[in-house]
Amino acid sequence: MFKIYNTLTSRKEVFKPLNRSLVRMYVCGPTVYDKTHIGHAKAYVAFDVLRRYLEFKGYNVLKVVNITDIDDKIIRKSIELKVDYREIADKYCKDFMEACEKLNIKRAHIYPKATEHIEEIINIIKELIEKGYAYESDGNVYFDVKKFKDYGKLSKINVEQVKPQDEGVGKRNPQDFALWKKAKPMEPYWDSPWGPGRPGWHIECSAMSSKYLGKQFDIHGGGEDLIFPHHENEIAQSEACFNKTPWVKYWIHVGLLMMGKDKMSKSYGNIITVEEITSKYSPMKVRFYLISGHYRSQMVFQEENLEATGAAYERILNTISTLKSISTIDVKVKDSSLKRIMNIGRIRRRFLEALDDDLNTPKAIAELHSLTNFANDEIIPNEDYPAARIALKVYEDAYRILGVFKEVFEEEEVREDKKLYELVNLLVTVRQIHRSRREWEVADLIARGLRSLGIELSDQKDKTIWWFKST
Amino acid sequence: MFKIYNTLTSRKEVFKPLNRSLVRMYVCGPTVYDKTHIGHAKAYVAFDVLRRYLEFKGYNVLKVVNITDIDDKIIRKSIELKVDYREIADKYCKDFMEACEKLNIKRAHIYPKATEHIEEIINIIKELIEKGYAYESDGNVYFDVKKFKDYGKLSKINVEQVKPQDEGVGKRNPQDFALWKKAKPMEPYWDSPWGPGRPGWHIECSAMSSKYLGKQFDIHGGGEDLIFPHHENEIAQSEACFNKTPWVKYWIHVGLLMMGKDKMSKSYGNIITVEEITSKYSPMKVRFYLISGHYRSQMVFQEENLEATGAAYERILNTISTLKSISTIDVKVKDSSLKRIMNIGRIRRRFLEALDDDLNTPKAIAELHSLTNFANDEIIPNEDYPAARIALKVYEDAYRILGVFKEVFEEEEVREDKKLYELVNLLVTVRQIHRSRREWEVADLIARGLRSLGIELSDQKDKTIWWFKST
Repeated sequence: MFKIYNTLTSRKEVFKPLNRSLVRMYVCGPTVYDKTHIGHAKAYVAFDVLRRYLEFKGYNVLKVVNITDIDDKIIRKSIELKVDYREIADKYCKDFMEACEKLNIKRAHIYPKATEHIEEIINIIKELIEKGYAYESDGNVYFDVKKFKDYGKLSKINVEQVKPQDEGVGKRNPQDFALWKKAKPMEPYWDSPWGPGRPGWHIECSAMSSKYLGKQFDIHGGGEDLIFPHHENEIAQSEACFNKTPWVKYWIHVGLLMMGKDKMSKSYGNIITVEEITSKYSPMKVRFYLISGHYRSQMVFQEENLEATGAAYERILNTISTLKSISTIDVKVKDSSLKRIMNIGRIRRRFLEALDDDLNTPKAIAELHSLTNFANDEIIPNEDYPAARIALKVYEDAYRILGVFKEVFEEEEVREDKKLYELVNLLVTVRQIHRSRREWEVADLIARGLRSLGIELSDQKDKTIWWFKST
Repeated sequence: MFKIYNTLTSRKEVFKPLNRSLVRMYVCGPTVYDKTHIGHAKAYVAFDVLRRYLEFKGYNVLKVVNITDIDDKIIRKSIELKVDYREIADKYCKDFMEACEKLNIKRAHIYPKATEHIEEIINIIKELIEKGYAYESDGNVYFDVKKFKDYGKLSKINVEQVKPQDEGVGKRNPQDFALWKKAKPMEPYWDSPWGPGRPGWHIECSAMSSKYLGKQFDIHGGGEDLIFPHHENEIAQSEACFNKTPWVKYWIHVGLLMMGKDKMSKSYGNIITVEEITSKYSPMKVRFYLISGHYRSQMVFQEENLEATGAAYERILNTISTLKSISTIDVKVKDSSLKRIMNIGRIRRRFLEALDDDLNTPKAIAELHSLTNFANDEIIPNEDYPAARIALKVYEDAYRILGVFKEVFEEEEVREDKKLYELVNLLVTVRQIHRSRREWEVADLIARGLRSLGIELSDQKDKTIWWFKST
């Protein structure tokens, strides 16, 4: 039984989707005005683990991640750099996609963009005005928080204590937030019943999630800094509009990545981009580091910790490789390996139980370290190949759920692919012909081509040996 | 909740393993004296689907398949051909392994051989004699079926009605079966407390299963022709020896493959080998055909049916390929695809419910055909890429569980592998240099090498195009 902590109810709950046939999941994606940093990555990796675990448990998952491609910060940057805001948005959207791919985050099913859903956004705002929850004021539209009686139920905030949200004139209450913002001079705008303008930040999530996931769905998540005001406002406008309570069954929030006492954030000037960190450490190690703490906890970034986690990761990789070579043995089993296999089964059970308990990845990873110790103490010295095969399956489950160990499970297909080997052998043979004829040009062409594919050559006296460069 | 039909209790039961950490499964493997035929394959594929489904459901599975490498038939053939019995056994053991690999049957964790477990076999026979269940008679040892009160509980046979088992002199009851057979002249033999001889057929399964799976385990299976006497005798000797009742929790039996009214069997001279059939039809189509009926049903082999199933299979493959190309689209979704996605979810649920119901593969496959119809009517014409992505995941689940569609899910990794493409391009470039220099020898060497890897070349006026030959 999978339990997950629900911010809305402030407790761990047994996960049970609204509909047996589909788990619908919406994750607040990036505002694309700068490079993706590892603070973002911590959250996206956490939701990827959640999705993978649900799929592992047999659920059919539909995941939507929105791209906020119009926003004050994007506009500010486009004015600064004197380029169209779309150029900024496209560039950093691409950067986000690349960062996700590097970190082995499975592609969401849909990445809707705010600017492609203006019509849907306007329709919801119209409905909110009709129902009396929103009002227009001088080309802006605001949500009247006092009309929505449940305001504060997610963040447990009393509406009277809320500091004024958004700038903006003509508000009924200082706490009201903008659904539609009147265009300022030079700003990009769209036509609307309230004149030219653009959507506020919060409304896009209600518009796009309802379009793709329906008016009620299972999981909505983001970083914990989104609980208030973003998600609180989303609930207000969505429940007011759709008449579904709760609009979202499970609200999941990820603890922030901290640099000392501050959150990692562009505005604090303390960010480390995914690009930077993965040029120094392999993306898999970075991912492993990011899930080494519990997703709900804040994590204080420290490079020493990343290094230490990376070393532990490498030990696991080496163990997996050794187990693989042992697993190909196929002789009579010397002693019964059933006890060892049972022990591996217990470790695997504890691994899954940790994940069932609100995705406790640090506990799950501790179990993987136990398995690694056991493999090195018991399985490998005894060349116990049935136990090695069972242990490999556990690591493979971990690969599927946690998205780590890609090096040893994905590359296997590449490295063990006979065709690939044969093609390289053929090229090396042809190159040998050229070398023997002293035709260096073609020989070098082949060598360069192979090197560019990560294949290293070493010319010996009468033959050439080759290998895949380790990365 | 997965339900499986248990021959022992004659009803479908909810599957619950004896130990939460491991599902232990023993399948009676081949007597290696001839080529593996598709009658065998039907059973092995069925148990592979069972294993895959248990793994899909999150169970940790340990699978043991024994190899009977000493037996009357093997000895007879070795005398006929005047070769050592081991040569016969090795040859057909290899054939069995190859047939399994072709049909995408996952390797078992252990393939124990009878001749490598003579010591374990002798120990069990000794214990049975000590406990009074077995007796020696002139160098043979027999199991006294009348001493085991539950004899007949699996096959529902009354011991009095049993026809005499085995030849053999000095039996107390004609129904008694041999545990140890005294060596006849010219036969291979092992020393034992009862003189030179070899094990009877049934005892190896008790010896090897207990060694690798313990004295009580979850699943034991084989073709339905093994229920009596083989599995009945196994139960008698194991429960008598290990004092565990039931020795095995779930007894699973697969319906036979029939040629008209006879079972496909070497002794009827009506076999079609896996090698033969897969030279005519792709192994994946053969596998798909073999699971097109319910595993417990007998299936009358008809080539027209195989052809028709193959055509339906191809339609699914084509649909998957089209869905793949649609799934790479990434623009604004035109209309909401949620309804379609929900529909796919319902099909997937019914697909899994069919499998939960005693592995009802024909029903599950019917759901895949529904999905294929739906994809062609609704998803593909509308280029609904989120729906395409969700549908592909269903086919991928089917690939993992049923072990079919390997062409489109495994080859993806090979075909889409950039390295592979780049290597072929490099070879084609180098070959182009040789062609322009009219050095036909090296050019042909490369062409031959590529063709042997299934890569076809076509020389155009000034360039060479290449493609993967479809299989």
